[in-house]
Amino acid sequence: MKTYSIAKSRRLRSTPYTSRIEKQGVTAYSSYNHMLLPAAFGSIEDSYYHLKKNVQVWDVAGERQVEIIGKDSAELVQLMTCRDLSKSKDGRCYYCPIIDDKGGIINDPVVLRLNNNRWWISIADSDVILFAKGLAIGNKFDVQIFEPEVNIMAVQGPKSFKLMEKVFGEEITKLKFFGFDYFDFKGTKHLIAQSGWSKQGGYEIYVENANSGLALYDRLFEVGK
Amino acid sequence: MKTYSIAKSRRLRSTPYTSRIEKQGVTAYSSYNHMLLPAAFGSIEDSYYHLKKNVQVWDVAGERQVEIIGKDSAELVQLMTCRDLSKSKDGRCYYCPIIDDKGGIINDPVVLRLNNNRWWISIADSDVILFAKGLAIGNKFDVQIFEPEVNIMAVQGPKSFKLMEKVFGEEITKLKFFGFDYFDFKGTKHLIAQSGWSKQGGYEIYVENANSGLALYDRLFEVGK
Repeated sequence: MKTYSIAKSRRLRSTPYTSRIEKQGVTAYSSYNHMLLPAAFGSIEDSYYHLKKNVQVWDVAGERQVEIIGKDSAELVQLMTCRDLSKSKDGRCYYCPIIDDKGGIINDPVVLRLNNNRWWISIADSDVILFAKGLAIGNKFDVQIFEPEVNIMAVQGPKSFKLMEKVFGEEITKLKFFGFDYFDFKGTKHLIAQSGWSKQGGYEIYVENANSGLALYDRLFEVGK
Repeated sequence: MKTYSIAKSRRLRSTPYTSRIEKQGVTAYSSYNHMLLPAAFGSIEDSYYHLKKNVQVWDVAGERQVEIIGKDSAELVQLMTCRDLSKSKDGRCYYCPIIDDKGGIINDPVVLRLNNNRWWISIADSDVILFAKGLAIGNKFDVQIFEPEVNIMAVQGPKSFKLMEKVFGEEITKLKFFGFDYFDFKGTKHLIAQSGWSKQGGYEIYVENANSGLALYDRLFEVGK
């Protein structure tokens, strides 16, 4: 099959990890939330078996966050999804299909309840922020809605648990599936969830401090050797 | 500069013209509204001079339409943009920045007034449909909002006027800038606007009948030889 280049225009945002993954030999990109999503590093079959047996670090910064804070934030988030969030708890992730007024699916994000007045919607590929803004304006909700500078790095595969323990200590192994908490790396706190795109399990690190994230990226490869 | 492939996943929609442009030697794509946008056919300099002097046919199906119909459609469209549309007329295009409640730009589309209860927002790269849906739901507007199957083909450059006249007859040369009307091609009506991305001028053909659009595509190249 003939391959075509991706035109890196300004509308396709790089991620903080782009320089790293290009050095590591990425060969193809997709676009996800107007951002470059690494799609291949050579053979897809090799990558599959590697993930099933070992550990992989992924640049999934394309999973952008829609942050919703304020008095009416819980009401707005509930209005967006068909999932009942009335018994949701701080520090937990919820898989929440976002639907329109006809029941059509707009997105299937993971929603993080930081607290009842502060939520992150960790989105798949569509501009959910615009749906949230439209609903908030139309309903005159008292909320603030924005895209915080969060660039997720995923650590996935059966060996991810041991690797993350070596970097963050035993505490991180106590995280339950879809639980999240803050963990220290050299003086910087990172929000880490036990979650991700692979059935093998692993973690997603919601990097807010890009410099610390890059140091952490390098550290994971160093320790994981 | 090293180039990277584009991973054609299912999230990146092809257009009806993709087979044509791949035969014509497209080398790079960008992504625009979750769709493949042809970005290069060899040298960018050659393309530039060709456009300045001749005529080019572009696959810009990525310019998706947000169709808004119904009793409150004019009110909704006005709510989305800072441009005053109170004196707008049927059959005219309007360049309308779409802004959020803080004045931040969400999109800079061309809005087509088909009539006062039927509008197309011909969008740049963001999911404006979600903003429209959120606003409509929040305000309980009586409207229907959807993405019609429209795939724009642009005919641009100084020789586009002569070419289009040969295909559609003299009538098309009477279209004013940012005016649109329906023109017949072998028994199928196509909405055509005098508009487009190039300063050299030209037309955008809002193709609703893909089969007729492909026949028209081929005809333009035949006549334009």
